[in-house]
Amino acid sequence: MGSSSAAAPPWKQLLLSSIQANSHLKHHSYFQLATVSSNNRPSNRTVVFRGFHDDGDEILINTDTRSRKINDLKHCPFAEICWYFTESWEQFRIRGVIDVVDGTTPDPLKLQQREKSWFASSLRSRMQYLAASPGLPAIASSEQPPSLDPSVGPVAAFGLLVFDPHEVDYLNLKSNERLLFTSAASVDAQKLWTSEKVNP
Amino acid sequence: MGSSSAAAPPWKQLLLSSIQANSHLKHHSYFQLATVSSNNRPSNRTVVFRGFHDDGDEILINTDTRSRKINDLKHCPFAEICWYFTESWEQFRIRGVIDVVDGTTPDPLKLQQREKSWFASSLRSRMQYLAASPGLPAIASSEQPPSLDPSVGPVAAFGLLVFDPHEVDYLNLKSNERLLFTSAASVDAQKLWTSEKVNP
Repeated sequence: MGSSSAAAPPWKQLLLSSIQANSHLKHHSYFQLATVSSNNRPSNRTVVFRGFHDDGDEILINTDTRSRKINDLKHCPFAEICWYFTESWEQFRIRGVIDVVDGTTPDPLKLQQREKSWFASSLRSRMQYLAASPGLPAIASSEQPPSLDPSVGPVAAFGLLVFDPHEVDYLNLKSNERLLFTSAASVDAQKLWTSEKVNP
Repeated sequence: MGSSSAAAPPWKQLLLSSIQANSHLKHHSYFQLATVSSNNRPSNRTVVFRGFHDDGDEILINTDTRSRKINDLKHCPFAEICWYFTESWEQFRIRGVIDVVDGTTPDPLKLQQREKSWFASSLRSRMQYLAASPGLPAIASSEQPPSLDPSVGPVAAFGLLVFDPHEVDYLNLKSNERLLFTSAASVDAQKLWTSEKVNP
């Protein structure tokens, strides 16, 4: 409420606390990402949380540009994250818009972030982007796995998804409380967040 | 793959094994359900697996008929389950169509299943359907929580979702294998399942 909330989204601290509280669990950094396919049907998959973009509220996700979600996002850029924390019984449903950053993106700042995300990935993760196209029929190959120079930048198949949240629906099943955070643009194009307590 | 596969979907045993292998983990019976809202945006939430319908492959989910997913499903009956098993690193993406069964459903067999699902729920679960409408602004109430006779059948807000799977995309991140199961209707309206190995 007020201009100060543009700098610090009120749900972000809640989310960071949940990540912290569940950090001893394997895969606390996984969530499910829903999109709409070009046939207008829903699509849903598990992806890895790669942190926030700088100090803002945009969520980073790495992806293979050959995967179906890229086509989904060209058709409809809206997405919903469902992030459930099994230990603390908290759910974050995060609604927003995804910007796909690949090697053809003209914006140098976005390309820089893509490169940063590439080098922040393990070598094993990077190797996946050299593998055969995901989802296509598997053909047995006698070829040696490709080698990858650790100093080489992102390959063509490496894409960065920048998820810009507009609304966050937070549910705490222990306290049986639910909060709905919604954003509106201020005159200087900053997001202004407000929250409302709703029935769980 | 022959008519015998109509009786036993090949992915079902795989799913039952995963549930079994992860049964010592809290909430191994939770998955994420994606739908498309009437504004054509994706929607995603965690729901509880309530078992299969009889001996078939239809998946049962309880829901509040006042929740937004009911409107989503009226707009678009297609849904995608994303079920990730954190211990065995397996993901099932299950695509299908949802039939919403509520008190107004004319089919007596469906109403019977709804009643069965109601009584299979804990009293605590049933109490949720007597609470204030989910998602609406919370108003502090001084009223006593309503009481519920354990022998009384389903209340109006109790809905049963019957999810009919058409396609299952199975990914095993330990073995790095991915299988795509697809169904087609046979001449006697049975589902015939076939599978294909695809790139992970």
